[in-house]
Amino acid sequence: MSLRPGAGRLARLATAGLLLAAPVLARGEDGYELWLRYRPIADARRLAAVRGAFAQVVVEGDSATLRAARAELVRGLSGLVDREVAGSAAVGRDGAVLAGTPKGSKTIAGLGLGDALARAGGEGFVVRSLAVGGRRATVIAANTDVGVLYGAFRLLRHLQTGGDPAAIEIADAPKVKLRILNHWDNLNRTVERGYAGFSLWDWQKLPDYLDPRTTDYARANASVGINGTVLTNVNANATSLTAEWLGKAAALASVFRPYGIRVFLTARFSAPIEIGGLKTADPLDPQVAAWWKKKTDEIYSVIPDFGGFLVKANSEGQPGPQDYGRTHAEGANVLADALAPHGGVVMWRAFVYSHETPSDRAKQAYDEFHPLDGAFRPNVLVQVKNGAIDFQPREPFHPLFGAMPRTPLMMEFQITQEYLGFATHLVHLGPLFEETLRADTRSKGEGSLVAKVVEGSLDGHALSGMAGVANVGTDRNWCGSVFAQSNWYALGRFAWDPMARSEEVAGEWARMTFGTDPAVVAPVTRMMAGSREAAVDYMTPLGLHHQMAEGHHYGPGPWVDTAARADWNSTYYHRADANGIGFDRSPAGSNAVAQYAPPVAEVFGDARRVPEKLLLWFHHVPWDHRMASGRTLWDDLALHYQAGVDAVRRMEADWRSVDGLVDRERHAQVSAFLAIQEKEARWWRDACLLYFQTFSKRPLPAGVEPPERDLAYYVAIKKRYVPGN
Amino acid sequence: MSLRPGAGRLARLATAGLLLAAPVLARGEDGYELWLRYRPIADARRLAAVRGAFAQVVVEGDSATLRAARAELVRGLSGLVDREVAGSAAVGRDGAVLAGTPKGSKTIAGLGLGDALARAGGEGFVVRSLAVGGRRATVIAANTDVGVLYGAFRLLRHLQTGGDPAAIEIADAPKVKLRILNHWDNLNRTVERGYAGFSLWDWQKLPDYLDPRTTDYARANASVGINGTVLTNVNANATSLTAEWLGKAAALASVFRPYGIRVFLTARFSAPIEIGGLKTADPLDPQVAAWWKKKTDEIYSVIPDFGGFLVKANSEGQPGPQDYGRTHAEGANVLADALAPHGGVVMWRAFVYSHETPSDRAKQAYDEFHPLDGAFRPNVLVQVKNGAIDFQPREPFHPLFGAMPRTPLMMEFQITQEYLGFATHLVHLGPLFEETLRADTRSKGEGSLVAKVVEGSLDGHALSGMAGVANVGTDRNWCGSVFAQSNWYALGRFAWDPMARSEEVAGEWARMTFGTDPAVVAPVTRMMAGSREAAVDYMTPLGLHHQMAEGHHYGPGPWVDTAARADWNSTYYHRADANGIGFDRSPAGSNAVAQYAPPVAEVFGDARRVPEKLLLWFHHVPWDHRMASGRTLWDDLALHYQAGVDAVRRMEADWRSVDGLVDRERHAQVSAFLAIQEKEARWWRDACLLYFQTFSKRPLPAGVEPPERDLAYYVAIKKRYVPGN
Repeated sequence: MSLRPGAGRLARLATAGLLLAAPVLARGEDGYELWLRYRPIADARRLAAVRGAFAQVVVEGDSATLRAARAELVRGLSGLVDREVAGSAAVGRDGAVLAGTPKGSKTIAGLGLGDALARAGGEGFVVRSLAVGGRRATVIAANTDVGVLYGAFRLLRHLQTGGDPAAIEIADAPKVKLRILNHWDNLNRTVERGYAGFSLWDWQKLPDYLDPRTTDYARANASVGINGTVLTNVNANATSLTAEWLGKAAALASVFRPYGIRVFLTARFSAPIEIGGLKTADPLDPQVAAWWKKKTDEIYSVIPDFGGFLVKANSEGQPGPQDYGRTHAEGANVLADALAPHGGVVMWRAFVYSHETPSDRAKQAYDEFHPLDGAFRPNVLVQVKNGAIDFQPREPFHPLFGAMPRTPLMMEFQITQEYLGFATHLVHLGPLFEETLRADTRSKGEGSLVAKVVEGSLDGHALSGMAGVANVGTDRNWCGSVFAQSNWYALGRFAWDPMARSEEVAGEWARMTFGTDPAVVAPVTRMMAGSREAAVDYMTPLGLHHQMAEGHHYGPGPWVDTAARADWNSTYYHRADANGIGFDRSPAGSNAVAQYAPPVAEVFGDARRVPEKLLLWFHHVPWDHRMASGRTLWDDLALHYQAGVDAVRRMEADWRSVDGLVDRERHAQVSAFLAIQEKEARWWRDACLLYFQTFSKRPLPAGVEPPERDLAYYVAIKKRYVPGN
Repeated sequence: MSLRPGAGRLARLATAGLLLAAPVLARGEDGYELWLRYRPIADARRLAAVRGAFAQVVVEGDSATLRAARAELVRGLSGLVDREVAGSAAVGRDGAVLAGTPKGSKTIAGLGLGDALARAGGEGFVVRSLAVGGRRATVIAANTDVGVLYGAFRLLRHLQTGGDPAAIEIADAPKVKLRILNHWDNLNRTVERGYAGFSLWDWQKLPDYLDPRTTDYARANASVGINGTVLTNVNANATSLTAEWLGKAAALASVFRPYGIRVFLTARFSAPIEIGGLKTADPLDPQVAAWWKKKTDEIYSVIPDFGGFLVKANSEGQPGPQDYGRTHAEGANVLADALAPHGGVVMWRAFVYSHETPSDRAKQAYDEFHPLDGAFRPNVLVQVKNGAIDFQPREPFHPLFGAMPRTPLMMEFQITQEYLGFATHLVHLGPLFEETLRADTRSKGEGSLVAKVVEGSLDGHALSGMAGVANVGTDRNWCGSVFAQSNWYALGRFAWDPMARSEEVAGEWARMTFGTDPAVVAPVTRMMAGSREAAVDYMTPLGLHHQMAEGHHYGPGPWVDTAARADWNSTYYHRADANGIGFDRSPAGSNAVAQYAPPVAEVFGDARRVPEKLLLWFHHVPWDHRMASGRTLWDDLALHYQAGVDAVRRMEADWRSVDGLVDRERHAQVSAFLAIQEKEARWWRDACLLYFQTFSKRPLPAGVEPPERDLAYYVAIKKRYVPGN
């Protein structure tokens, strides 16, 4: 119901004053179309110019991928110019889009694009305004069909975001080879840490029924260059590797293939026992190796372009090679050997922690993996989270980046907002991605950016990858909220180019999602730019981390100190006492700073030099420590919490300013969610400050609103049936 | 994606041959609009007539319910006539719709509708073509605002299904007081026996965010007269009665209230212990009674129109009064006493079975409840499933109907297809509803139909009710498949009028859902009419029952004989042996037939007189028993299985015949699901016949296709991660 009748009728209804006084635009959109809305260009002059330049679509050559490119160009251009843009067999007039590869199109081959195409590689493209047979045209050229598809999406983005239709000169290619979504989707369709409904994979109906939505999922991914999807949870289930379930995965792969997307699966390390009937999963046992080889061959027999395995081993209860006294490398290599003949890869996660509670959990991944550098097969990537703890609002970059030069390290970001307020908190992650990727590891001198490690350029790896833990589900708007879509978008953009600029990416997304009106784009991009820092401020400012409620991680829980493991407690991380607060990871403490290259370690290890935003990550600091502001730590800490609340209120004001300029349905949902966020920012502020005040014994500084309830009230809050847990 | 751009643009795209060769109509609909699609009337003459008769909407009076009626009339009429139908303050021209109550509208009060309105009662209405102030008008009059809303939906249905726009004369009122959906929705949003995604209730975001979809849910229910919704699972969770969760339920109630829908909750009998801190839940303990009274008062303080409690007690592990040596009546009454001051009711389920395995489970509900007739408070209804086992493809009517004249008995149907192939099998339940409701209990002589028991007319009860276990979830089309929507629709229609005719209801639904083209309506209604008998034939013909796989109930499992309880085994129900097959419930057997009135018991108890469709429900019959066909039981049984497969193939042929006449997206989904159904009908046939053949030792008769695999193959099939389980 949320009817979608003809726009014409809607306009008439609106004119008649029956729907609302607001303009037609304000009628609902439900967010399903994501950033691929292709709404008519509003400005009449620009509309005329685009109509003139894009009146015909010519895709030379034929394949499922080229058909997808043609369909997208026809759909997108027809939408943007609000009239049909015809598909044609050949350029027959001024204003054609000509797309293809030199191999599939003599016309393209004859355009003299050889040099540009040489730089495009296997997935890049050239989009250029050119004369073709004397006609004005826009050419999309690539060496492969998927390059053409990427070029088609890029051209559409160019036009959606207000780019010049007449003098186009774009050449681009991805900097990272594997650009991947990790779905933590269970076989029963629940999604671990998922806040957008059920899993998109309707296993029961597969392989017989292919939901059209899976095609739209592929389109959305291809539009930002994502080229792989791990269908199953890292907390893996061996059933997903049985013949019946491989048939289901193969059906999904057939939907994704035309869009250049390969399917990956998680491999439960004990699968040889659970579904193979073996007595062991010891990676050095020849029977185990033979089982993985046979299973892998079976997978490739039904999914010829299977990407490979993602593995979480010996972490949080998952089985792994250490169960048999073997190393992570020995575990990864048995899988890698099975995959190598087919061109598949292993993505082996570095997020591990042993059964014994460590003195400092932040050190553990480095301690386990650093010695293994060079021990992995060439088709193994080690997948490293952006920080050493667990997808916190802010973490320093993971010390493994730069520390394993002989091993391709993949970046693992978390798009789903496990620690960031789930779907109702507006937290755009572009700034987090940018901050992490532009961090300088100094491992090979200045400029040894995390981005260069991930690209493989720092250490000369051909294999490279970036993954995001997906935030999509069956919710109509895919991600639980409209703004959460921006994080899916941004992951794709940063995976394509780790040196992308968050501001630019946010601007693209805002224009594609809400239109190019500056009165919308300015407040929306301002909200996005500040939202992550707002969350840091109202949750865990100044380097605090892991202060969330236990288990589900929703809401504050700084008092948590009864978890089954010490390092699941908030108190383990904040270490507040009468003297001060923070985790001493300096040489006087756990010395985690020593895991960084010396120039970094020196800065992080020195409470006077470490950036204040990381102060309490690395140091236990007295409450009266003098901050750059001239205030005490306690006062600054309190003011950060207040600043987080204030920032959310500014987001609310910005969003009110676009009322009537964006459609009513999306506006209403974002407004409701911002109200939740503002309420919960106050909850975080009050709960944390009241709790920390029991140690600091200091009054709240001027400018901080007094708490609304007492500490006991906040401690007593127990959220039940929280999603994703 | 699955774009819904302006119809005009789509038409142009289609004209340009870019989308498909098929007509515009064939472009996708996703089923979200259900039967409230309001597409433009295709026939030009009829369109002109409807435009002339419906050019203005005048709703006199103001309330949330009247605003909903006005909005629906404007939306529906504007859609049907493909132009804006204006809302106005007063009848100002020929062709107005005037809606209101005599109380709220002087115009309505002056129309002389007193007699008709007297018959309309609290929820009924009159819709009539009348002159109003000298203008031609259509009047919707009712005694209450919700009656006006129902009248508005009825007028729209009249026009959607091709009714005469000029000479309308409709007067109607519901025959049943409580018309209810039972949601078996858990607080974590999974749905027990749900095959359409997650629960619609997004508990985590409630009460702060109200999904617009919940309003559309209310519209759909109101359109068929459903006036109550039980939000929570009968396998209840006491948390739903805590203050926090009542606030969430109250938010949903606020959405539903304008649509005449009241919220009910399930009450876990042990809630006084679990959330009340008491040591007992003994219904005769004064503290327990006081707790329920206080809790109920609390509920009404936040949900003033709360409907009451649905309770499953002492059944399948649920706590109940028998835990304290009390009867079901004593259990129900403590809740009823708490609700009575507020006008609430208890719906106490008769679906019980004790811990001890019974000699015949079909007898148990009667044995426990029949003696309690007269022991319940006046605001208690006993909710009885249509049959004595559990929502099987076919069951004889439940023997309690007619057997408890002093107690209002509610009907409980299951809309969700737990035993009927989930969402992918097309099984329209109208024939099942009709067959059950028109069964003659003979309890007060001929004509003592189950329908009359349910209406309360047979025994003079003012309180009456019918419930359906809901099949809705977050799937875009609400029910998992388009045709499953017809079961939601039919439940509402039969709850409104238990003597409704399935054929008529199916015809309405088909026209509203796919349009009035006879070339569509005829095959669609034919499919619907035959689909349930098809399922009976390929699953459990001739009175067989409970032959489904264990636990999840998907697919055949006639060999199941290792369940934890004897009466969870298929073998318990079919009792096949070398001599024959069937459950002897005759006087020579369990004598379950004695629970029916004597004239019914005589027929059911006699293998020569019992309808063959119930033969094996009541009798153990030799394989060579001569059937009405002249064939042996074995041959007829086998031919029934084959007939089920053949009927599905006919449905496929019917559906192929409407290709191009219904939109592409819905057509494709139904086609894919029919293919699954045909494959699984063969699975059922082959598995069951091969298994029963191990007893009958007889060959398959001519006309039955040979099995595709051997019995071991079918027995080895183990479905995992089946939804709803």
